[in-house]
Amino acid sequence: MPLSEFSLIHRYFSSLGRGPGVALSVGDDCALLEPPAGQQLVVSVDTVVAGVHFFEDDFPEDVGYRAVAAAASDLAAMGAEPLGMTLALTLPDADELWLHAFSEGVAQAVAAFRLPLVGGDTTRGPLTISVQVLGCVPPGDALLRSGAQPGDAVYVSGTLGDAAAALALLNGDWQAPAEDAQYLTARLHRPPSRLSLGQQLRGRASAAIDISDGLVADAGHIAAASGVGIVIDTDALPLSSALQNHPSREQALRWALTGGDDYELCYCLPQGITSPGGVCIGQVVSGERVDCGMPLPGAAGYHHFEQDAE
Amino acid sequence: MPLSEFSLIHRYFSSLGRGPGVALSVGDDCALLEPPAGQQLVVSVDTVVAGVHFFEDDFPEDVGYRAVAAAASDLAAMGAEPLGMTLALTLPDADELWLHAFSEGVAQAVAAFRLPLVGGDTTRGPLTISVQVLGCVPPGDALLRSGAQPGDAVYVSGTLGDAAAALALLNGDWQAPAEDAQYLTARLHRPPSRLSLGQQLRGRASAAIDISDGLVADAGHIAAASGVGIVIDTDALPLSSALQNHPSREQALRWALTGGDDYELCYCLPQGITSPGGVCIGQVVSGERVDCGMPLPGAAGYHHFEQDAE
Repeated sequence: MPLSEFSLIHRYFSSLGRGPGVALSVGDDCALLEPPAGQQLVVSVDTVVAGVHFFEDDFPEDVGYRAVAAAASDLAAMGAEPLGMTLALTLPDADELWLHAFSEGVAQAVAAFRLPLVGGDTTRGPLTISVQVLGCVPPGDALLRSGAQPGDAVYVSGTLGDAAAALALLNGDWQAPAEDAQYLTARLHRPPSRLSLGQQLRGRASAAIDISDGLVADAGHIAAASGVGIVIDTDALPLSSALQNHPSREQALRWALTGGDDYELCYCLPQGITSPGGVCIGQVVSGERVDCGMPLPGAAGYHHFEQDAE
Repeated sequence: MPLSEFSLIHRYFSSLGRGPGVALSVGDDCALLEPPAGQQLVVSVDTVVAGVHFFEDDFPEDVGYRAVAAAASDLAAMGAEPLGMTLALTLPDADELWLHAFSEGVAQAVAAFRLPLVGGDTTRGPLTISVQVLGCVPPGDALLRSGAQPGDAVYVSGTLGDAAAALALLNGDWQAPAEDAQYLTARLHRPPSRLSLGQQLRGRASAAIDISDGLVADAGHIAAASGVGIVIDTDALPLSSALQNHPSREQALRWALTGGDDYELCYCLPQGITSPGGVCIGQVVSGERVDCGMPLPGAAGYHHFEQDAE
């Protein structure tokens, strides 16, 4: 890769490393962070690959933003305060325009998720973006997947299925009015920050996860980790007006149940605990299965259901 | 990717996550770590790509070991205690044999570098391995690139050029006696741990870096960050007996000066400070250049010399 590209990347990214817990940012062998005293460190990594997790011709600004948002979503699901992140960027000979726009998307996400970019590695190869996020949480306060109890209510933090509907739109599988199409693609490309909600759920939620594989799959991870069953009331699923406008309600529900990439939170609240937001969509029961009352043959997130949690 | 592969990876890797600072390992949205109270957190990420950083047909055990060793080397260069790591693995349809051997190499490195594997992400795509390492260091004790002063002595922690000579061997550019060839390829595939040395250099070294791009390039990073010059005495460069056996001393020196991937440390010690190991190979002077007394046209690490530090 020509030097100019490395210099360019360094110039773009080195300004994004300032934050309250950052003692030393990009430019040495490692970064130095100072988590608040006595807190636990929260760590996760998320990779996206061109042609697998995003289209090669997606706007690079969106690619950058979404890569960070997807990783930050795991911090939200733990109830963590964001501390910082590193970015491992593998890219082929890329043009400056692409890099400029990609960096702009990363910068927007750095601001939106309060995740200073403290380190990185840039290598040449097929376009792959790996984001490692670091956060902190008071000891014992992290939201795990494993605490759900029968009788708990199950909530989601926002409308579901939007990202899957957007993907179907982009694939030409259906058409939507311009306003709905714009809304849905924004939901796909600019996942929300649920960091604040996650922090409010500390001491309240018995279990939490972010919805990246689809509601049924991710609720399944809670069910498996907690040793419980979950019953989803499909009539209660929050659908955006764009999805409500879809001619087939069954298709809309299918996206809401199995579509990934919405990056909303799914969480469980014991009886008597008020939710700081979100919509109640079901109940924790004894058992070990997720029951949504409708068959989901060949659904995208469905196979993940049996997968080991990661 | 078939479920069986994910399950396999999970089975291999989930046993590698135990360590003194690990409160929660692989299996939830994030891992939870507990760094020693009052310490700074040390963070770095390192990516290797098939066909760029290693040969497609390298033994997968070596690929796994080396990916971890390369990332751990940055912790050593900061004088950090290892705390844990995450592994982002992007791989095409891989056979079980490959995965088994790769995991075995990672497991060996987890033990050798005391870096429990606390999280990861497995995606499908071109073979790319990104390792994020976490360590800790008492505040103010981290070894930076920026503290070298004229008059300091410059040390390296071990023989140089071995990995470059091994690469040349594997490329068929020269032949070595079997014993030398075996030694050199082991140096390439199994980089050393300098974590202990790095920790001993705290409070002693004025600057340090690990040699991943080549001595001249990496000494250049110290020179640039410290605002000094560095004079290398090529007669003092430690060469393995395998390199001393090479018919061309000039070629051997060229590898030692510009060959990357040795993952030894280069560090500076003020006058009167004894080195806990290593070999003195030069002096810090006023100026801003690295001078090794011989021309290095088109050398591998040379272009990096002008690159911005990362």
